[in-house]
Amino acid sequence: MSAQYGRPERIASVKGRDGGASRVGDVLELRGWARSVRTQKGMAFIDLNDGSGVSGMQAVVSEGSSAWEVANSGACSTGAALRVRGKLVASPGGKQAAELAVDELEIIGGADPETYPLQKKRHTLEYLRSIAHLRPRTNTIGAVARVRNQLAYATHKFFQSNGFLYVHTPIITASDCEGAGEQFQVTTLLNGLEGAASPEKVTAAEAAVKAQGDAVKSLKEAAKAGGATKEQVDEAVAKLMGLKAELEALSSSSSLPKNKDGSIDYSKDFFGKRAYMTVSGQLNGEIMACAVNDIYTFGPTFRAENSNTSRHLAEFWMVEPELAFADLKDDMDCAEAYLKYCLNHVLEHCDEDLEFFEKNITKDNLRERLRSVASQEFARITYTEAVEHVKNAKKKFEYPCEWGSDLQSEHERYISEEVFKDRPVIVRDYPKDIKAFYMRLNDDKKTVAAMDVLVPRVGELMGGSQREERIEVLERRIEELGLDKEAYWWYLDLRRYGSQPHAGFGLGFERLVQYVTGVENIRDAIPFPRYPGSAEF
Amino acid sequence: MSAQYGRPERIASVKGRDGGASRVGDVLELRGWARSVRTQKGMAFIDLNDGSGVSGMQAVVSEGSSAWEVANSGACSTGAALRVRGKLVASPGGKQAAELAVDELEIIGGADPETYPLQKKRHTLEYLRSIAHLRPRTNTIGAVARVRNQLAYATHKFFQSNGFLYVHTPIITASDCEGAGEQFQVTTLLNGLEGAASPEKVTAAEAAVKAQGDAVKSLKEAAKAGGATKEQVDEAVAKLMGLKAELEALSSSSSLPKNKDGSIDYSKDFFGKRAYMTVSGQLNGEIMACAVNDIYTFGPTFRAENSNTSRHLAEFWMVEPELAFADLKDDMDCAEAYLKYCLNHVLEHCDEDLEFFEKNITKDNLRERLRSVASQEFARITYTEAVEHVKNAKKKFEYPCEWGSDLQSEHERYISEEVFKDRPVIVRDYPKDIKAFYMRLNDDKKTVAAMDVLVPRVGELMGGSQREERIEVLERRIEELGLDKEAYWWYLDLRRYGSQPHAGFGLGFERLVQYVTGVENIRDAIPFPRYPGSAEF
Repeated sequence: MSAQYGRPERIASVKGRDGGASRVGDVLELRGWARSVRTQKGMAFIDLNDGSGVSGMQAVVSEGSSAWEVANSGACSTGAALRVRGKLVASPGGKQAAELAVDELEIIGGADPETYPLQKKRHTLEYLRSIAHLRPRTNTIGAVARVRNQLAYATHKFFQSNGFLYVHTPIITASDCEGAGEQFQVTTLLNGLEGAASPEKVTAAEAAVKAQGDAVKSLKEAAKAGGATKEQVDEAVAKLMGLKAELEALSSSSSLPKNKDGSIDYSKDFFGKRAYMTVSGQLNGEIMACAVNDIYTFGPTFRAENSNTSRHLAEFWMVEPELAFADLKDDMDCAEAYLKYCLNHVLEHCDEDLEFFEKNITKDNLRERLRSVASQEFARITYTEAVEHVKNAKKKFEYPCEWGSDLQSEHERYISEEVFKDRPVIVRDYPKDIKAFYMRLNDDKKTVAAMDVLVPRVGELMGGSQREERIEVLERRIEELGLDKEAYWWYLDLRRYGSQPHAGFGLGFERLVQYVTGVENIRDAIPFPRYPGSAEF
Repeated sequence: MSAQYGRPERIASVKGRDGGASRVGDVLELRGWARSVRTQKGMAFIDLNDGSGVSGMQAVVSEGSSAWEVANSGACSTGAALRVRGKLVASPGGKQAAELAVDELEIIGGADPETYPLQKKRHTLEYLRSIAHLRPRTNTIGAVARVRNQLAYATHKFFQSNGFLYVHTPIITASDCEGAGEQFQVTTLLNGLEGAASPEKVTAAEAAVKAQGDAVKSLKEAAKAGGATKEQVDEAVAKLMGLKAELEALSSSSSLPKNKDGSIDYSKDFFGKRAYMTVSGQLNGEIMACAVNDIYTFGPTFRAENSNTSRHLAEFWMVEPELAFADLKDDMDCAEAYLKYCLNHVLEHCDEDLEFFEKNITKDNLRERLRSVASQEFARITYTEAVEHVKNAKKKFEYPCEWGSDLQSEHERYISEEVFKDRPVIVRDYPKDIKAFYMRLNDDKKTVAAMDVLVPRVGELMGGSQREERIEVLERRIEELGLDKEAYWWYLDLRRYGSQPHAGFGLGFERLVQYVTGVENIRDAIPFPRYPGSAEF
């Protein structure tokens, strides 16, 4: 295999930047799915899509060719998998630069038009969620998949080119340090309980044991009196033992292992203690940043919040860089550079998809907006200034804004959209009482070195902080908040040995996908969304 | 921010390929941790490591300089975080090309030599696992982190450059299609049960309710007879209601929601049905490949197998590409090209780390072995040929080898190490009875289009198959195996609409890390290993 490895060329590559004009004359073999098939005036027009772009390749079959019969066999319908071969020719219509004059047409797999759910007509995004196994075949969800892929790759390219190590932080955790929001529990304790015994069965088994016990007793007495043989007694005892074992099995399979105080005995669980699904890789990320310097995570995180909204998922992907020997300014610089890199990357690699979202979803100047964010310096203000801006606004807000309380989404959007005229804004130095224990206490003792990146239309996209590296300050905060210091032994060790200022931030990846594509419901920003009542496919 | 974003330069970059010789004369500021500090003849030598490589920078402090006092203050010890500034000079010793002549030395964070667990002496890998928050500071685990990072990046680069889309398949799944191995369950049903009531408490509460009920009854009768006031009765009734509510709360918090037949009522769980952690992203990957063409997943997968071995993890990362319009040959070509790409990538980017593993772990010609695998064509044989090879071997094996049974690790290694003289071998066309239902049935009706990639020293590294794309064959296989066809409705839909031959494989990422680094225990190939009894940190 000295030859270069490669997969067959795809339609988007054939079309390139000129729609394929420079490739006219090439003989091509393409595989994909028919998005639509129509016949008129001795020509069949197949819109062939192979997943590489929103627009596919127009494949034209002329009457009289051997492909003509196949095209008109009825099996060549929307959704069918096809192989086509032919020459790329300049397209007489103005719609595309080039089209394929088909010599060979093969139907690889049909799609019965009577039952195939994705006919040419439009479907609501809500309906499409109910057929999540087919929806990536639609323009919108397919384009989201391509943009999501490029944002993920941009994430890796940005951090790798800046020397960050990608680390895999754990998904399952029995550490007591987490606890932001509700957590899912991971267990094997319920495995035996599925075919669990009903209380009736247990009662019946208990009765059977008692009855047999009585029978044994009577038999023994009878034996003493010569009215029963030893064999009869032995047989009855054996039966009693069997019934007792059955009862035992029923009882233990129908209940969780318990401690004496009635609580569940998690020492019997897989990990020997109660285990959860992670809500953030940050604390583990800090471990790595305190050893191998700058790192980033990119993995799934979980929230068991029962919120059925268009903004929340039970399972979502987070990007969490952690910078060693870094303060809040380094953190803000990194967040700003990262976001700009992602935007420039998708603008370069997903132009056709973004154009599609612009026309069909956001119905505005999406690409221009993204370009503007990617090219201008982000504003940077303190939380205290942000509160002033909101209080001085001429506008009415739904929620009040007072120093000491969280900025609401409407406040955040007002600041970036109106005060700073559609410019991203980084707000820093939040009151310590509304932020996490690990954020570094500022000299004013009232605020911490936290920051949020606000973008127009979305509000908060990233949030981060410099971490408290001073062990005595960190211990005091843990005590103030009534947290269990013992549980943080290893986190404190990072400050005990070779401590250094470090900082990081988190980005909810689906929020970024939403921001870039404009899709309104976060359930359309991930291929297989998980939310209350829904974990199908 | 028109200026290029960048983090401070790191030691590995300063040293480059010539150990820093070409940078002599540069004034540098470096931050990192002291791996060792020793003083002799008016010079202090600090081995400064910033996580960018196994070998750090030798920082030399001369007696009389302002840094000298700091270096000898006692706080400048192994593990301390330091900032050093000075000029890069040619090193008089032969050990390194260049060293830093220190002008400024600052201790950012000390590490008490009395308690810091990572002194210069060697630690066993087993001990290091018990301090997983500090172990990435060691040479071995730090080098694993760098190699792992490069293997992950190589994975993305390989698939991206070949047009594959990276997709995030779900972690939580309520789909009934999985089931390879034991699964972890994900639930919120146990949340209320933690402070659960003991049976004694419930009994006591029941008794209290009964007693108060009796009291109310007596009072009511007394009231009729004029011996108690209405107020007294009302008060007693209110107390009774309170006790009843307490009892109710106790009872419901101490038991799982149950169906009438005694089984657990999962309609009350977060996802409305029983949910698990995924064992593979393949089926979801197929959904995507049947819509947007070639894709790959790279995410965590889980097994609740109670196996405490050096080869198993409860949580591990898998790479699972799925190729559309592809057969088994395409699959094998992809697997071979991917593995070679990864090996070439680490050979290029991790030379120092691989040299370290070669000297300290594998104690052999590791890099030569990897280079050899990366440059030669993989052998390709059928399973039937593989069995013949094993049966004809002059060697004794622990396990027998008969057509129809799985190849054991010893057989796999014999084939790649001895029959093919340390060459990777792809074995294809396994008996259908030892493979999964979704693998494509070959024309002989006895074997399926499955393949395993065997590498010397490790055995199986990747396994894959062409998927059964013929709906009637797939349905028959599902029935033959007694699986629930209803559960596979969406998987069958992929064959019902626009079906096409597709194929994919899976790689256990930690196995690849082990293969490349030579670390024997898989728990050292991932930063925070999860296994029975262990989910700390």
